Amino acid sequence: MTAAGIDLGGTKLSLAVFSDEGKMRYKETMPLNNRSGKQAGQFITGAIKELLIRQNDNGNIIHSIGIAVPGISRSKTGTVWAPNITGWDEYPLLEEVQQVCDGIPVTIDSDRACYILGESWQGNAKGCKDAVYLAVGTGIGAGILTGGSILRGAHDIAGAIGWMALAKPFDIKYISCGCFEYHASGEGIAKVAKEILENNNTYSGQLNNKPMTDITAHDVFSAYESNDLVAIAVVKQCTEFWGMAIANLVSLFNPEKIILGGGVFGPAIKFISHIREEACRWAQPVSIQQVSIEASALGTDAGLYGAALLALQKINPGISA
Amino acid sequence: MTAAGIDLGGTKLSLAVFSDEGKMRYKETMPLNNRSGKQAGQFITGAIKELLIRQNDNGNIIHSIGIAVPGISRSKTGTVWAPNITGWDEYPLLEEVQQVCDGIPVTIDSDRACYILGESWQGNAKGCKDAVYLAVGTGIGAGILTGGSILRGAHDIAGAIGWMALAKPFDIKYISCGCFEYHASGEGIAKVAKEILENNNTYSGQLNNKPMTDITAHDVFSAYESNDLVAIAVVKQCTEFWGMAIANLVSLFNPEKIILGGGVFGPAIKFISHIREEACRWAQPVSIQQVSIEASALGTDAGLYGAALLALQKINPGISA
Repeated sequence: MTAAGIDLGGTKLSLAVFSDEGKMRYKETMPLNNRSGKQAGQFITGAIKELLIRQNDNGNIIHSIGIAVPGISRSKTGTVWAPNITGWDEYPLLEEVQQVCDGIPVTIDSDRACYILGESWQGNAKGCKDAVYLAVGTGIGAGILTGGSILRGAHDIAGAIGWMALAKPFDIKYISCGCFEYHASGEGIAKVAKEILENNNTYSGQLNNKPMTDITAHDVFSAYESNDLVAIAVVKQCTEFWGMAIANLVSLFNPEKIILGGGVFGPAIKFISHIREEACRWAQPVSIQQVSIEASALGTDAGLYGAALLALQKINPGISA
Repeated sequence: MTAAGIDLGGTKLSLAVFSDEGKMRYKETMPLNNRSGKQAGQFITGAIKELLIRQNDNGNIIHSIGIAVPGISRSKTGTVWAPNITGWDEYPLLEEVQQVCDGIPVTIDSDRACYILGESWQGNAKGCKDAVYLAVGTGIGAGILTGGSILRGAHDIAGAIGWMALAKPFDIKYISCGCFEYHASGEGIAKVAKEILENNNTYSGQLNNKPMTDITAHDVFSAYESNDLVAIAVVKQCTEFWGMAIANLVSLFNPEKIILGGGVFGPAIKFISHIREEACRWAQPVSIQQVSIEASALGTDAGLYGAALLALQKINPGISA
């Protein structure tokens, strides 16, 4: 059997074709170019139509299609909420995709669910029934596998770990994105660096090389390499937050693995031993000894693998990660 | 069908008999009297033998037995770890109970798992597939139902929410019990009150009526009723911690209900609207609107109901909460 895994990001669309043994046979990626609303939907259905036409040329007949979306997939209605795609509040993606698929089954799930499914199928959580993918990029989310099933919650919003309360008292800065995300996401790293710089008149390091508003997490990690004191302070604070959040996942879920992924892990994966140390201070002491904290093996392809696994499970429930 | 639900507490043992429709037909409670190790085991098996003898007199033939234990039930070995019963690190409870049960099926699970199962069967989480029981007593634990199944984790230690990291920086006081439990358990309430009193030379309220070392959570709640300023400060702090922890459960699990139980809720249930307010500030904003936060309906019987449901499910997997 062959499945298509499709990963819709905030800025690009990736499509791949997989064998049921998890071999990726084909992959393409194309920019979304700020398409929004119905244009974004047509872009996706267009790309799927192309893929289905080409399957006859290359012999990879697609039996099922899985799609990872950057937000919430509402399982009861087939609609999608994606904050980075304008107009996608209750977008009827399932219906639109089914219309071009000629009876091929279509499954949609959130990107974070697909990340952990992908890692448990062909990545660093292979064979795990209890594992968490902590995705730290522009925002923060968690894909959570418990007893072999994806944790979805009553209304498909489970895993919104960016909202985790970690530092009281409450600050109005947390209102739009949550406490953990405010301090330790990609955007958070840049924001915290700017806050420190604004209160530091004597600083003359490399973070001054560009206008303060343009500073990114990437700049902070690069300054860290040169022993920049502001960058070191930001990384120290983030490590504390990442460690606390991981500790909380460990105490609540008692997982076999925590997989760190997303754009920030990436460069921040080099701090993994410090993050583990911090998590060890806070977590349930037996559980923390039973968990392995690792980098994503699949990187930016984790969502494609997970979407393909969902697609394969739809036509053969016996296939497990 | 009839099942026995047995709830082993840190200080007492309760046994009850239930119909498969959830009617409690019989209940008895007896003190453990500080029994430890093998004596505690013999006390339980003795009580079960008595129950099975009496079933012939009263016609309530028991088809299955479920036991809730105050700690960890290791599903692979049938052994129990119970911190409040001396000598119960890897106690072979399943084997011992089976020896006196003459082939009647026996199931053991943690008390927190049984609390949420009980509430979902006959209490305030009736019919819920995604719900959490937050038990705040001497310690703090959570029984978590996700998609209709109990969250157990890879090694049966899931739900150890007393270890939740909520207030950085790390304090060595958290080492023995975790940050959340240190600040907001029954013991924590007394401890925090003592800390405030130790640093307050001018206080002359009713918490001075007994030696500082004897102050309990009960004293704090009673002083609160008289507008005692120290008690008010302690309750305010606890409300903040309870709200943050509930917010984190909501953001991670997107549950339909959070049930508050244990000895502290109890008296602290009167603060439920303040706790909800605090949770609203921190949690994922859509999820928090989808959850109902309620008191336990079953009170100290929640574990009995849950243990009985486990027992019934063992012989008829079709029975659901």
